[in-house]
Amino acid sequence: MERIPILRIGTYLLVTIQVDMHDQLALTLQTDLTDRIAEVGARGVLIDISALEIVDSYIGRTLANIASMARVLDAATVVVGMQPAVAITLVELGMTLPGIHTAMDVDSGMQFLRRSVRDAEDPDDWRRNSTEE
Amino acid sequence: MERIPILRIGTYLLVTIQVDMHDQLALTLQTDLTDRIAEVGARGVLIDISALEIVDSYIGRTLANIASMARVLDAATVVVGMQPAVAITLVELGMTLPGIHTAMDVDSGMQFLRRSVRDAEDPDDWRRNSTEE
Repeated sequence: MERIPILRIGTYLLVTIQVDMHDQLALTLQTDLTDRIAEVGARGVLIDISALEIVDSYIGRTLANIASMARVLDAATVVVGMQPAVAITLVELGMTLPGIHTAMDVDSGMQFLRRSVRDAEDPDDWRRNSTEE
Repeated sequence: MERIPILRIGTYLLVTIQVDMHDQLALTLQTDLTDRIAEVGARGVLIDISALEIVDSYIGRTLANIASMARVLDAATVVVGMQPAVAITLVELGMTLPGIHTAMDVDSGMQFLRRSVRDAEDPDDWRRNSTEE
């Protein structure tokens, strides 16, 4: 396993993290993701971490980096599917993932992205989004 | 890594296979997937194999099993993102994945599923699908 696949769904990109994020994999993901955001003009990135039973400070920092890079490229990032035990550990460790939006699952995450993209657009131009799917 | 996450997107389920499918993992995926199809009443299953550089006969059989089980539960299955080298090897090995639909990426796979679900419905009842997203 050399890279984490990035799936395009409409104007969003979906990444499912299933393996331990060692240094090189995290760097590759950041590069691949920023390339894809620019390539497809993505408006949002969904990162599914439902398979992760442990989120340590390295993964937390990687997620924060990805969110910051995506923001610069005008895409919002939502982390979805966090296991309850992971949330407990994160808070106990004092890691509150600042600047990262979270949602229960991919569906909720997409709804959040649709809303946030719509809010960011000119209100007079709202019809653009209603045909986006 | 004990199980492959199954993501719900509208009325479809998305599975991204990133790791080697040993026996237990394949069985767990089959059970989890059939459970989720029944639970959410899914109409389609998308299996992304873009991360796989090798698809052997075991994985091929697992994919065929999943497609058959999904069909019994009234859900179509589409395998997406196959690497060109994998396609070449499959054909050279004489494995043509009978009964499995393929598509280039998740977007194309979803379009295929939307079309096939629509065709399967009563033509007088087509409006049902136009509000499904």
